[in-house]
Amino acid sequence: MEVTTYFEEYEIGSKRMSFGRTITETDFVVHAGHTGDFFPHHMDAEFMKKSEFGGRIAHGTMIFAIGIGLTANVINPVAFSYGYDRLRFVKPVFIGDTIRTRTTISEKLDDPRRPQMGRVVERVEVLNQKDEVVLVCDHIYVVERREAAA
Amino acid sequence: MEVTTYFEEYEIGSKRMSFGRTITETDFVVHAGHTGDFFPHHMDAEFMKKSEFGGRIAHGTMIFAIGIGLTANVINPVAFSYGYDRLRFVKPVFIGDTIRTRTTISEKLDDPRRPQMGRVVERVEVLNQKDEVVLVCDHIYVVERREAAA
Amino acid sequence: MEVTTYFEEYEIGSKRMSFGRTITETDFVVHAGHTGDFFPHHMDAEFMKKSEFGGRIAHGTMIFAIGIGLTANVINPVAFSYGYDRLRFVKPVFIGDTIRTRTTISEKLDDPRRPQMGRVVERVEVLNQKDEVVLVCDHIYVVERREAAA
Amino acid sequence: MEVTTYFEEYEIGSKRMSFGRTITETDFVVHAGHTGDFFPHHMDAEFMKKSEFGGRIAHGTMIFAIGIGLTANVINPVAFSYGYDRLRFVKPVFIGDTIRTRTTISEKLDDPRRPQMGRVVERVEVLNQKDEVVLVCDHIYVVERREAAA
Amino acid sequence: MEVTTYFEEYEIGSKRMSFGRTITETDFVVHAGHTGDFFPHHMDAEFMKKSEFGGRIAHGTMIFAIGIGLTANVINPVAFSYGYDRLRFVKPVFIGDTIRTRTTISEKLDDPRRPQMGRVVERVEVLNQKDEVVLVCDHIYVVERREAAA
Amino acid sequence: MEVTTYFEEYEIGSKRMSFGRTITETDFVVHAGHTGDFFPHHMDAEFMKKSEFGGRIAHGTMIFAIGIGLTANVINPVAFSYGYDRLRFVKPVFIGDTIRTRTTISEKLDDPRRPQMGRVVERVEVLNQKDEVVLVCDHIYVVERREAAA
Repeated sequence: MEVTTYFEEYEIGSKRMSFGRTITETDFVVHAGHTGDFFPHHMDAEFMKKSEFGGRIAHGTMIFAIGIGLTANVINPVAFSYGYDRLRFVKPVFIGDTIRTRTTISEKLDDPRRPQMGRVVERVEVLNQKDEVVLVCDHIYVVERREAAA
Repeated sequence: MEVTTYFEEYEIGSKRMSFGRTITETDFVVHAGHTGDFFPHHMDAEFMKKSEFGGRIAHGTMIFAIGIGLTANVINPVAFSYGYDRLRFVKPVFIGDTIRTRTTISEKLDDPRRPQMGRVVERVEVLNQKDEVVLVCDHIYVVERREAAA
Repeated sequence: MEVTTYFEEYEIGSKRMSFGRTITETDFVVHAGHTGDFFPHHMDAEFMKKSEFGGRIAHGTMIFAIGIGLTANVINPVAFSYGYDRLRFVKPVFIGDTIRTRTTISEKLDDPRRPQMGRVVERVEVLNQKDEVVLVCDHIYVVERREAAA
Repeated sequence: MEVTTYFEEYEIGSKRMSFGRTITETDFVVHAGHTGDFFPHHMDAEFMKKSEFGGRIAHGTMIFAIGIGLTANVINPVAFSYGYDRLRFVKPVFIGDTIRTRTTISEKLDDPRRPQMGRVVERVEVLNQKDEVVLVCDHIYVVERREAAA
Repeated sequence: MEVTTYFEEYEIGSKRMSFGRTITETDFVVHAGHTGDFFPHHMDAEFMKKSEFGGRIAHGTMIFAIGIGLTANVINPVAFSYGYDRLRFVKPVFIGDTIRTRTTISEKLDDPRRPQMGRVVERVEVLNQKDEVVLVCDHIYVVERREAAA
Repeated sequence: MEVTTYFEEYEIGSKRMSFGRTITETDFVVHAGHTGDFFPHHMDAEFMKKSEFGGRIAHGTMIFAIGIGLTANVINPVAFSYGYDRLRFVKPVFIGDTIRTRTTISEKLDDPRRPQMGRVVERVEVLNQKDEVVLVCDHIYVVERREAAA
């Protein structure tokens, strides 16, 4: 779905929660194969059984990619993704955990180089089935100003 | 391969370059299916033909995940990944582009909460076949100090 | 996204058009591997070069599954899918074609066994980039009546 | 394997049973990624644990595509698939169920537009490991007549 | 399909030819991800453009696995696969090549440890679209003797 | 990583052990889909429950491809893979088994046709988590002689 939202219309504090998705052993295998990272932390059940974690833990890049993917259902044609700040892996994710992503508009800034645009910061929190935050980051969008579009 | 490297042994300015990997249409389809992000920017050749880009562009999360994956060949058992800062999508990546990842040790810091550990910042640059930087970020590791291990 | 729509609220003639998706060689390979159907019509470029089609053609089950998948973005919690009627493969789909799905509410019927429900028929048309219909079917939903919910 | 079978040679009532195939969590993840349908019914174990089903249920389009795929082992060069009628999802399929497909030649008809062809209807029943029918449909083939070929 | 064939019934010199299958870029990416072998010979188009081969070449293990897979359509319940001898990679396989597998019963031997069984050697040749042999090996089966079954 | 090793530098008896990798149900499904081999031995849990094995067993070609893939982390630019001898499937591999690959330089031979090259035979043993050998083969490399390179 496409919904046009100008810079002025983003409201600090507004929140969205995604659907849930269970992280499966399949996702571990697909992500290893997709990225080439076959480190035993993700792929060797015997090795991880004896570790402090007690089992295989998800690739950080996977929880990031799927966590962001869960929010990808509305296209804003007047915005584009500029980057991410302060991406942190707060807790491990195990096979069978179910994650959801909560996004909160946390900041609005002028764009230093583009007066007709502004920057919108969306706080991203990926939660597991116990409502624990497992990953956080700040997603920065560059968004057209309505006044500029007028 | 496993190589133990303590905090003291990281040298500011030391660099590594990964092998290259061609980003294929398959990677686009796999990443969409892995993350659930089927936005037309990545999946609709007709729509993108008429866009300013002239063709489908890679998911940012994919270039990040594969770019980091290209560096995943040596395990340091006394380090763990803490997170990423200043992740930026500098240029679009198209089907058929070949990427490599250059990492440079850029900073060493005390860990505010763990005196026996330090933080090592690795500057990550993903390059395309024209040696243009397409993605940058700072990868932060927490690494054991040799003195603490002694 | 979840949107509750009762039987009474479906309007005959109302239409939706999905985003587009380019059908890639990857999709052919994934579908063959997913279903076990490796017939040369889908997998052997040399064989098909000499056929009346001039190239590999998509599995009918794939265009159906992806065509329906393109419409899967709003969940109606008071409806469920009952089945499909008159599924027809109207034109072949080739690697590189871009499909979209148009759905039209075409019929509303009493449910013979469930007085508190009704049946909604959605006409599904999968189109290619030339706006040609490549697949049609009637998707039958069983939907709660608002009066019954009251 | 290729076996030529003309319209006249199809016998009403003749049956075939496919091999079995266990439907895995992997198949669920692959089908979601292949079609873009990540609805929680298929992907969110926590959500479905509390539902009437007690667990994730397979996409209808997947059981159809795999159920038909199980029958794809003999090519008849004088037949092509015309479409499907009365496709119904009779029972849910869960992770770990094992399905097989039974096909029965159920009807033979003249082709209204092609006198040299006939229509053969194959009744398709997908069964689970308890011999319960989970999906049914009528597969319609258009088949050359031997007399026309002579 | 299941066909019982006893040791005595294998005829030296009898041949089968499989269907064809085009080896796609997708297969390269899937095989790398499946095995973890991302060597630039298979994955880096820029690197291989300048090599003696002029382009990416298939993993040997992939042509072996797919070449053998092409022959997997008849199950003999009185035989099992013992191993392979003299597996050789005769010519490189490129993206877009179409392979078929020709098998020839080449030898019949007593089984040294199982008098009620015999060994059947099947010569396997994988051919490309120019009828060049790209891979050969000897597939050794251990097969029940009919006399022993009687 | 690239490490140049000439024929003279290979030492008979030198060994390497790979990381471990747990063989998952996902790998079974991916391998079936990659090769087209959907035999019930690998795919039908009900059928195999009643067999002598008690459960689905891995494709031999998969354990070979993944077992070899586990060793693919150092490229020797003066060597190429010539083929494999005496590939044997010693024990079945089940879903959940964790494999590692041990390689031992076992033989050095003149190359009959290339005086500037030699043949190095690497004994490959794939082990499971009980340290049982499940697959063996001899990997034959053709390697440049240092004296020839001088």
